[in-house]
Amino acid sequence: MTFRAREAIEQAEVIAGYKTYIELIRPMIEKKRLISTGMTREIERCREAALAASEGHRVALISSGDAGIYGMAGLMLEVLEDMRKLDEVEIEVIPGVTAASGAAALLGAPLMHDFCAISLSDLLTPLDTILRRVEAAASADFVIVLYNPKSKKRTKPIEAAQEILLRYRGPDTPVGIVRSALRAGQKVVLSRLKNLLEHPIDMQSVVIIGNSQTRQVGSFLITPRGYQL
Amino acid sequence: MTFRAREAIEQAEVIAGYKTYIELIRPMIEKKRLISTGMTREIERCREAALAASEGHRVALISSGDAGIYGMAGLMLEVLEDMRKLDEVEIEVIPGVTAASGAAALLGAPLMHDFCAISLSDLLTPLDTILRRVEAAASADFVIVLYNPKSKKRTKPIEAAQEILLRYRGPDTPVGIVRSALRAGQKVVLSRLKNLLEHPIDMQSVVIIGNSQTRQVGSFLITPRGYQL
Repeated sequence: MTFRAREAIEQAEVIAGYKTYIELIRPMIEKKRLISTGMTREIERCREAALAASEGHRVALISSGDAGIYGMAGLMLEVLEDMRKLDEVEIEVIPGVTAASGAAALLGAPLMHDFCAISLSDLLTPLDTILRRVEAAASADFVIVLYNPKSKKRTKPIEAAQEILLRYRGPDTPVGIVRSALRAGQKVVLSRLKNLLEHPIDMQSVVIIGNSQTRQVGSFLITPRGYQL
Repeated sequence: MTFRAREAIEQAEVIAGYKTYIELIRPMIEKKRLISTGMTREIERCREAALAASEGHRVALISSGDAGIYGMAGLMLEVLEDMRKLDEVEIEVIPGVTAASGAAALLGAPLMHDFCAISLSDLLTPLDTILRRVEAAASADFVIVLYNPKSKKRTKPIEAAQEILLRYRGPDTPVGIVRSALRAGQKVVLSRLKNLLEHPIDMQSVVIIGNSQTRQVGSFLITPRGYQL
């Protein structure tokens, strides 16, 4: 967490967020009013946060990772726009450490060169669009970070992604799977593209697929930037 | 800055880094030994840091943004490997807030959907590879974050990138240019793809190119995630 994020939480009178994330900051928010709802209630949560803000309260809407990368920043702005309150309340988006950064740090340095972030969740995006992006990223030798790689019900997208990736990259391409980066239950797995699906992967995981230059050295993944040593 | 980054700097006996970044943390590092060199002396700096670490000192190597994204983490690991000291010293990569996150936060929420990070610096990467990635990213409707977009001597890559992007995206596609995000001299510009080159852009800037869904709403860029309000 950044200093600015903690300061903003401390200064807020109202805290809005998904229950799981609220629990992570519980010691910081005693006696504050909570707008806490479960998963899939994001719109409702943003509306309540917007109402509280337009009544003059200082509200902190909590995202995990970076609110600006697959987080709550966008929906919050859209809800404010929809409620015609975008000009009415003062808004600050506070950037954070996104899951790609957290996972990469635990793996060594796989994101030293150009990379793509792709969410494999097809709840809000057609699977065709997702796979078209996987293919484009694979074909141009990007390192690839897969967010929301797999859920209990949603196993097809990562299978399809692996199949596409194997058309462009060697079966021994290094991959890293990081679960709950820098949180309780953290797990880091180094593997190869061909073995990707043999490891446990869930919605708390981030998967990083190396590009043609990525090497595994000891327990580290390194994508060289191109320096001549 | 994250709490963990500050803690690591405070705990270190030796601080290594590019002069400009050392200056940013000057108040935190009084009386510590410094390994501070100018730009393009990165390898030298890492070798000195590795030597100090292998002599038993606690060393913090400073990167701006996220050390793991176009930062110093990879080169540090490569230098340690080259010096056969990778197993000898204990290494922790501490993730940070990358420039894409900082710039996106100031622009609103442009990175709510799949995005690519591409460095336009052709010092260590052939321009062909860079432009092939711009084209792949453009064709699959990724939001695109350009790092190192332009220097005094290096103006061609961004011109070529704009030309490629205009083949795939409308001339009015929203773009954001953020200079020195969250630092002294911060500057935020909202513009359109067709007007991109009319604005001052330098090595301290990050450029974000919207995808087909990105909208400018007031002073914000929003790439919708796909929620139905």
